Amino acid sequence: MPSQDAITETVNSYLTHVANGATDEIVNLYSADATIEDPAGSDVRRGRDAVREFYAAFQDAKKDTELAEIRIGGNEAAFYWHLTLDAGDTRTQISPISLMTFDDDGKITSMRAFWGPSDVRVL
Amino acid sequence: MPSQDAITETVNSYLTHVANGATDEIVNLYSADATIEDPAGSDVRRGRDAVREFYAAFQDAKKDTELAEIRIGGNEAAFYWHLTLDAGDTRTQISPISLMTFDDDGKITSMRAFWGPSDVRVL
Repeated sequence: MPSQDAITETVNSYLTHVANGATDEIVNLYSADATIEDPAGSDVRRGRDAVREFYAAFQDAKKDTELAEIRIGGNEAAFYWHLTLDAGDTRTQISPISLMTFDDDGKITSMRAFWGPSDVRVL
Repeated sequence: MPSQDAITETVNSYLTHVANGATDEIVNLYSADATIEDPAGSDVRRGRDAVREFYAAFQDAKKDTELAEIRIGGNEAAFYWHLTLDAGDTRTQISPISLMTFDDDGKITSMRAFWGPSDVRVL
């Protein structure tokens, strides 16, 4: 099981890479057969190609991320964070509660992000 | 699947009953074979008796609860909340990120609370 520090570091790296649109670096944080469910309740995507496709779709958007709260239990992290999207004349913020599981090497094996249209806020 | 409003209402009822130490009312929010894992990463307790025992253990403590953020996806809720424990001369606060799943009748089928000793704060 990865340490709490290792898990926290990976979550922070994840948010940095998401902000920078660094798709390769994001994919590299995931295990080969990882799953993503974003938003939670939607179809589950599985594997490196699906993970890459998901993040590549919005890598060029100007955005920023901020970790607000993180809680770790076993090999899992639950965290509350902010994603700010800057489209020039409008800035919107989504603040998901995300859940990640990790394998022994500290790679993300699953990511689920809880948020919905009603959580999108125009700044 | 219960509506988002029904899920939110149940979470609010849950937090009110926790604050009041209303063990019967809490147990009634759960399905018969529900599981609780609190803190997440610890042993899973299953069934009404185990649920009752868990909440009865601290029903008499003076405490308050506050819902900070809630996100719903499908039949699940993720929520960030505050539990303030008042022991007279010392007040402590724990702020878990919890995850609940619900059945079609809106009963809680599982509860997992992410928090650890490092999240306990003396006020």
